[in-house]
Amino acid sequence: MFSEIHMPKGFECAGVSAGIKPGGVKDMALIFSDTPASAAGVFTTNQVCAAPVKVCRAHLQHGVARAIVMNSGIANACTGAEGMVAAKDMAAETAKVIGCEPQEIFVCSTGKIGPQLPLDKIIPGIGKLFDAALIENVQDCAEAMMTTDTRPKVSVAELEIEGRSVKIVGFAKGAGMIEPNMATMLSYITTDAAVEQHALQAALKKAVDSSFNRISIDGDQSTNDTVLAMANGAAENRPLDENSHDWGVFYQALETVCHELAMMIVHDGEGADKFVTVNVKGAATAEDAELAARAVANSMLNKTAWAGTHPDWGRIMDSVGYSKAQVNEDLVDIFYDDTQAVAGGCQSGVAQEDLIKVVSQSDFAINIDLHMGEGEAVVYTCNCTEEYVRINY
Amino acid sequence: MFSEIHMPKGFECAGVSAGIKPGGVKDMALIFSDTPASAAGVFTTNQVCAAPVKVCRAHLQHGVARAIVMNSGIANACTGAEGMVAAKDMAAETAKVIGCEPQEIFVCSTGKIGPQLPLDKIIPGIGKLFDAALIENVQDCAEAMMTTDTRPKVSVAELEIEGRSVKIVGFAKGAGMIEPNMATMLSYITTDAAVEQHALQAALKKAVDSSFNRISIDGDQSTNDTVLAMANGAAENRPLDENSHDWGVFYQALETVCHELAMMIVHDGEGADKFVTVNVKGAATAEDAELAARAVANSMLNKTAWAGTHPDWGRIMDSVGYSKAQVNEDLVDIFYDDTQAVAGGCQSGVAQEDLIKVVSQSDFAINIDLHMGEGEAVVYTCNCTEEYVRINY
Repeated sequence: MFSEIHMPKGFECAGVSAGIKPGGVKDMALIFSDTPASAAGVFTTNQVCAAPVKVCRAHLQHGVARAIVMNSGIANACTGAEGMVAAKDMAAETAKVIGCEPQEIFVCSTGKIGPQLPLDKIIPGIGKLFDAALIENVQDCAEAMMTTDTRPKVSVAELEIEGRSVKIVGFAKGAGMIEPNMATMLSYITTDAAVEQHALQAALKKAVDSSFNRISIDGDQSTNDTVLAMANGAAENRPLDENSHDWGVFYQALETVCHELAMMIVHDGEGADKFVTVNVKGAATAEDAELAARAVANSMLNKTAWAGTHPDWGRIMDSVGYSKAQVNEDLVDIFYDDTQAVAGGCQSGVAQEDLIKVVSQSDFAINIDLHMGEGEAVVYTCNCTEEYVRINY
Repeated sequence: MFSEIHMPKGFECAGVSAGIKPGGVKDMALIFSDTPASAAGVFTTNQVCAAPVKVCRAHLQHGVARAIVMNSGIANACTGAEGMVAAKDMAAETAKVIGCEPQEIFVCSTGKIGPQLPLDKIIPGIGKLFDAALIENVQDCAEAMMTTDTRPKVSVAELEIEGRSVKIVGFAKGAGMIEPNMATMLSYITTDAAVEQHALQAALKKAVDSSFNRISIDGDQSTNDTVLAMANGAAENRPLDENSHDWGVFYQALETVCHELAMMIVHDGEGADKFVTVNVKGAATAEDAELAARAVANSMLNKTAWAGTHPDWGRIMDSVGYSKAQVNEDLVDIFYDDTQAVAGGCQSGVAQEDLIKVVSQSDFAINIDLHMGEGEAVVYTCNCTEEYVRINY
């Protein structure tokens, strides 16, 4: 699937089975740079957060990283002091194998909350990863990150900076527990561009806000969400920052990669088979627009109606009404793609079949105009099927 | 089922089929008092609200009511000026049949949002209701209120005020769309006690806050939620208010009726087969306790885990963490009934089977201690099954 995809210059990657998950499934991944790279990170805002998130936050102070090592199957969350030791050991062992400082290693875990990491499997796994990375394998790396994902997620951008070829390769896992602030979402963005650390951090934060933070699967937020970026400078451009001539080109490519990965996550929402874009405009403020869009995108009644191919715009009116956005129901217009369902808060008179046609598609938009001001927002979501419940049993 | 239950003195009730729903299903109900009654009401906080809610709010200014007339099948919400005319016509016709002022009539509708009320069925339905009420029928009245409810809901309290027998009879419908602020919930409380209007209003508000507003099914809030109370004084006690000797007895009975009806609604949650009480104590404030309890009760990941008989306390930690309550994860204790799953934010070491035993029950409690202060709250919720998704398709 990704056999044609190669990492940016100076990066290696691998995915192996370390025996954390049963059945020889790949469950550890490594991404590393041959040289120290500028590093950036954005993390879960959950007050309950996993040991590896705490370790990443601390190591990010260093500003420079060599590698990201991760495991799936166990989240190393709610594991107390023992979990912190395990996360640090995981970083230390990776540093030893690569030959760098532990502070230059990011560690991530995803999976079940509660159990301690099996270090007797993790430590040998790190050695296996390093050996496997001699033959860079993007597919294996992306597969090892998966939990309930049905497919690996990789996005690539190629661009020119100062006439030099630059590449961005991003990985992600998602599937369930996805809501504002990137619940159970991991993403790693690698680039051979040279980028100043502070500029990389600001750019990553901005790109995450307009991509991963605009998707919603079930309204839950996880303990382990992490987006990391590494820029190793192997393209040998002059280090980029916000004042560089080609900054816009770089930022746009970074945002596109994040956006593509975020869309892949929604498309692969647990049990979901419909991708729904919720656009709100005409809100009193941008914040109001976001509140209304999130209320619509997160409503179980909307998500199940879409699963059942019912337009049921009344449920959309209902969720707009209970959102904290300022709403005057007599002004609300709602369109399914371009077909108007609601005009001034009442049914438009359009034939129900025309709306059913829209929600029968695997990809459609709900476009809402509140007619209260200039605020706009978009949120990407999916339907909720019986399969979602089965997956989460 | 409720054939043994009789209304308080001076009240009549009925339920009939007016042909709004197909198949001769009962779809209109009437409750009326032979004499003017003190009236109180609590309504949805949704900014999008149904025409009958607007009419009820206006009529409540009058403080006195003779009757409640309702239909199921169509919500008369998002119906604009035409919907307002229909709701007022429904009140006017009922007033004409009973012989009182339209302002003394409460009107309610529940069902699909969007379509206009079929007045050609509603108006004859009111006549049928009045005729049917000559033979008071609590069962028919409760059945006519149902939408996706699987069973009618009635609660009765009998008490003594100043040595006189007083009765409270309450009706409710619920099932889906239930969250804070009583989503798609209708409840009517009748009593033959004499109660001052202002005291009845305050008591109803307080009782609703500690009953209907403490339940959660799917986190959605409706356009039509209404709780109404009528006290007609047929028991001939001196009118009660907060200073009356027997006020406490009356209030307690009122709250008990509201609580029983609220519990019936959760037990009959769409597709639900488990009743879960979420207790939070030790929160920094009572508000924090409520935020944490609601986050746990509303989490789809918790609700589906319970459906699958998985303890999965990690998901509870996760939802406590992303609630807006102040949390220190290292202090959190979680019990399933009396069995401790989490101690100081980590697994307690209890056998998984012991937790499975608890979540296998049809009724259990999640008891959370945040160890941050004295704040306490309880929220009642249910599991989420594949059946929930099927019902809402």
